[in-house]
Amino acid sequence: MAVTTDKRLLRGARTRQAVLRRAVDVASLDGLDGLSFGRLAEDTGMSKAGVQTLFRTKEALQLATVDTARDLFLDAVVRPAAAAPHGRARLLALVDHWITYAEAPLFAGGCFRVANLATFDSHPGPVHDALARDQRDWTELLAKQFRTAVAAGEIAAVDAEHAGFGLDALLCATNTALRFGDQAAVARLRDLVGSLLSAPR
Amino acid sequence: MAVTTDKRLLRGARTRQAVLRRAVDVASLDGLDGLSFGRLAEDTGMSKAGVQTLFRTKEALQLATVDTARDLFLDAVVRPAAAAPHGRARLLALVDHWITYAEAPLFAGGCFRVANLATFDSHPGPVHDALARDQRDWTELLAKQFRTAVAAGEIAAVDAEHAGFGLDALLCATNTALRFGDQAAVARLRDLVGSLLSAPR
Repeated sequence: MAVTTDKRLLRGARTRQAVLRRAVDVASLDGLDGLSFGRLAEDTGMSKAGVQTLFRTKEALQLATVDTARDLFLDAVVRPAAAAPHGRARLLALVDHWITYAEAPLFAGGCFRVANLATFDSHPGPVHDALARDQRDWTELLAKQFRTAVAAGEIAAVDAEHAGFGLDALLCATNTALRFGDQAAVARLRDLVGSLLSAPR
Repeated sequence: MAVTTDKRLLRGARTRQAVLRRAVDVASLDGLDGLSFGRLAEDTGMSKAGVQTLFRTKEALQLATVDTARDLFLDAVVRPAAAAPHGRARLLALVDHWITYAEAPLFAGGCFRVANLATFDSHPGPVHDALARDQRDWTELLAKQFRTAVAAGEIAAVDAEHAGFGLDALLCATNTALRFGDQAAVARLRDLVGSLLSAPR
C-alpha cells in the first residue's frame, strides 16, 4: 500500500515537473500571461482537467513557473560558477555561464526574467512580487561579488550595488540583442564586461 | 466643397491621432499584442467599426502605434537635447530628457521599446522589424555622440558602438526599476552615466 502511494506521488511529481518545464519555455517566448491550462495540456499530451488539477489557478501555475525558471537558472549559471573563487573570477565565471544560458538558449525564448519583467512591471500582485524578488536576489549576488573584487583590489573602486545593476543591465540588453539575431552581441558583452572589471590604475 | 473635404480630412486625422495616442499608452502597459479595435474603441468613445475602418488590420494598427511612439519619443527626448553641443554635453542632455520621459512617465507603462522588444524578439514579422529598426536608430544616435566625445577628448577612449549599447542597456534597466518602484533608480543611473562619461585620465 505504502509502495503504491509512493509510486503514485512520484508519478505526480514527474508529471508536474514536465508541465512546468514546458511552461518555462512558453513563458520565455510569450510571457507568463501566455500560459494556459489548455495550451500546456496540448503541448504535453495531458488532459486539460489533469493540468488544472495540478495547479488549480492560473496564478498558482505562474508562480510555480517562476520558481522552476529560478531553479533551472541557478543550476545553469549560479551553481557551476561557484567553482571559481569569490570576486573578479566569480563574476567572469557567472558571465561565461550566463552567455551559454542565453545563447544556447536554455529556454526557448531566451532569458526568463527579461521576457517577463517588462510585462509584469505594470501589474502588481504575487507574480510581480516573485519576479521582483528573483531579480533583486540576482543583482545582490552580483553586487556581493563586486564588493569582494573591490576589497581585494582586483578591480577599480566602484559602488558595488551600482556595478551589479550595471552588469545585469548589460546581460539583459545582450539577451534581447541575441533574440534579434545580433551576431556581435557576445563579443560586445565580453568587451564591456572587460571594462567593468578592469584592474585599478 | 473643397473646404468641406479639408475639414473632413482634418477631423479624420485628429481621430486617428487620438486613437494612436491611446494605443501607445496601452502598448506601453500590455504590449502591442494587448491592442484590439474593441478596447481602443471603448477607451476613446468611438465605435469598433470606426476604429477598424481607420487601420483595417491589427498589424497595420501595431505598425502605426510604433511610428507614433517613435515620434513622441523624438519630441520628448531627441529634439530638445539637440540644443546641447554634440558629444558629452549632448549625451548628458539626452539622459536628462530620457529620465523625464521614463519617470513622469510620458506613456502610461513607461518606456515603449522596453515594453515591446522583449515580447517581439521571438516573433519575426513587420512589427518585429519596425521595433528593431527603431532600437538600432536610437543606439546609433548614442554611438555617434560617443564618437564625437572621444574624438574631442571629452571622455576616455571607448568603442563608441559598445558604449552606445551600454548606455541604452542602463536606460532600459532603469525604466524597469522605475516601474517596480525602485526609489534609487535615477540617482544610480546618474552615477553610472557619470562613470561612463568620465574625463580621460
